[in-house]
Amino acid sequence: MNNSHQFAKAALRLRPLAGIFAITLLAAAATAADSILIKEQGSFFVGGRTIYTDALTGNPSGFLGTGVNDGHITVEQMYVQYQIPEGAETHVPVVMIHGCCLSAKSYETTPDGRMGWNEYFLRKHRAVYLPDQSSRARSGFDATIYNEIKLGKRPASDMPEIRTATHELAWVLFRFGPAVGKAYPDEQFPVEAMDEFGKQVIPDLNAELPAVNPTWTNLSGLAVKLKGAILMGHSESGFFPEQAALINPAEIKGLITIETSCPALTPEQISNLAKIPTLIVFGDHIDDATSLPNLWKDRLAACSHFVEQLKTAGGDATMMHLPKYGQFGNSHMLMQDKNNLQVADLILKWIDEHVERTKAKSAK
Amino acid sequence: MNNSHQFAKAALRLRPLAGIFAITLLAAAATAADSILIKEQGSFFVGGRTIYTDALTGNPSGFLGTGVNDGHITVEQMYVQYQIPEGAETHVPVVMIHGCCLSAKSYETTPDGRMGWNEYFLRKHRAVYLPDQSSRARSGFDATIYNEIKLGKRPASDMPEIRTATHELAWVLFRFGPAVGKAYPDEQFPVEAMDEFGKQVIPDLNAELPAVNPTWTNLSGLAVKLKGAILMGHSESGFFPEQAALINPAEIKGLITIETSCPALTPEQISNLAKIPTLIVFGDHIDDATSLPNLWKDRLAACSHFVEQLKTAGGDATMMHLPKYGQFGNSHMLMQDKNNLQVADLILKWIDEHVERTKAKSAK
Repeated sequence: MNNSHQFAKAALRLRPLAGIFAITLLAAAATAADSILIKEQGSFFVGGRTIYTDALTGNPSGFLGTGVNDGHITVEQMYVQYQIPEGAETHVPVVMIHGCCLSAKSYETTPDGRMGWNEYFLRKHRAVYLPDQSSRARSGFDATIYNEIKLGKRPASDMPEIRTATHELAWVLFRFGPAVGKAYPDEQFPVEAMDEFGKQVIPDLNAELPAVNPTWTNLSGLAVKLKGAILMGHSESGFFPEQAALINPAEIKGLITIETSCPALTPEQISNLAKIPTLIVFGDHIDDATSLPNLWKDRLAACSHFVEQLKTAGGDATMMHLPKYGQFGNSHMLMQDKNNLQVADLILKWIDEHVERTKAKSAK
Repeated sequence: MNNSHQFAKAALRLRPLAGIFAITLLAAAATAADSILIKEQGSFFVGGRTIYTDALTGNPSGFLGTGVNDGHITVEQMYVQYQIPEGAETHVPVVMIHGCCLSAKSYETTPDGRMGWNEYFLRKHRAVYLPDQSSRARSGFDATIYNEIKLGKRPASDMPEIRTATHELAWVLFRFGPAVGKAYPDEQFPVEAMDEFGKQVIPDLNAELPAVNPTWTNLSGLAVKLKGAILMGHSESGFFPEQAALINPAEIKGLITIETSCPALTPEQISNLAKIPTLIVFGDHIDDATSLPNLWKDRLAACSHFVEQLKTAGGDATMMHLPKYGQFGNSHMLMQDKNNLQVADLILKWIDEHVERTKAKSAK
């Protein structure tokens, strides 16, 4: 810890003399295998409701042959894992929520074994909260409908779509390169670890959720529970921070939206969101995607429009298209890219300048 | 940290004078909100294989309307989260694997917000590895068969059973009390937090796995990767440590089997397992269960027989039926019970005496 601090201080002194060199030194210090002092850690659930199920199992003889196949279960809860490092008191906690066909693993160790944003933000003295979306991973899902189909109580056509992504789709859609097995020349995603990335991709059961996604409500509840939080979303969950704020903006101190589509909103909704500092982040090769070639262009355009709307409404909104910030070759999975800590530094700088300085000002 | 150490030392000095009082002091020191120094943490996958799927989604128009509905996905991988605390070098890492309809959450913060075994073992300077079973939680599952049924490619009767547990079943089967809402007089499970426990219960898709459960193979692979590990299993996974050792005993230093059934094994299998120190743990109220009244009696009897077989084969095997060790009122979820740290102390003492002293001896 001390070594890292001294290293960082040395780098800060060097910065005016040799900017880029000092930044490299800082990154090296951050990736050094220093210990982390954790003040508190654990996990809990937000939300969830108890329902009656008539198909606890898909077996006519019930649970463990007891004949019991009905009763009460909890659904729509959101599992949250957290760590509070030493020195977090002066910073706003950061909630990182994952995208489609993924879990909170997105933000942990990268597929090629480097430090993920979870640990990097801890090392920057931020309390980090990692939820699994409701109906995914450790949050569980409601299996009733599947068991009802298995038991012949309803037709197979009633089954909600389960969505995954193949390795092939991920390669081109996530902009690892122009064709499967081929990377862009400046690609930052660690394509040599594609097999490990494939293991993170898990089925997405969100299609069974109600129109107002419980994860949105649960995220707004989490911010209240934490008495202040920055919400960060990615891809499928990229706009979840805004959806949470539209349900209840209390205690949501900042919105970070990464690589997603920004839907059309009413003037009232824009006006409400404009009260919260907002950052939108997009990676590189937006115009180069070979699969669904307009998908990324359209998303970048829609989110740029959203940023303009927020600004017009008096909001503090930033479009961080990474190539314009000196970071090139970033994929859709930019929290796992080889320059992931440099991208994190840009986000931390934004938090410092737009969320925490604002907070300091309003506290005066 | 220092306070805790001094407290522990003081308690140790007091022990000869006032046994039970000193133990209480030790427990108080351990539950104090001291920081933990984490040397390394992160997550990775063990195992997994790439398969071709012809039903990536249950939507005839394919993934995001691309028409693409086939390709390669990874299945049977096992997600593992880990932390290595300061001082872990002298101890064998502990792998804690969860039971049916649960995830690694079982070993984290208890339903009523107390410290779980994950953190307690870290505080006792053990590296802790928390997998989610293959086909569960962050390990994902193969959704192909569900999507094939949705797409009409196969009949609904092909669907593997998905298993959950209702609140009602959990109450009586997990021995929280004799009837739903009623606790045993000395019950240790925090029944007041039953609603929170209900949120941990998630669907179990193990029925779709092959006969040799990939989690067994992945656990044996994890021990090899760690160059030595103690495997601990609970309930559904209670015998997984032994199953892993029967696949490959290399680097499995101890087997801890909690509240499960012990199947009949061949003399050769018993002989192979007898080379590894083995601990079996059961809670209280084995004879009092009102649902499936013979289930726990039969399991305790089968595991007692297993312990005798190991001993006859020259093994170091211990049956820890908690009431005989001075711990009363423990439920099936004993890692979450109010005396969970006292039970953990018994297990740590067993590790010290049967795994690590053995290890020290054989290293001489």
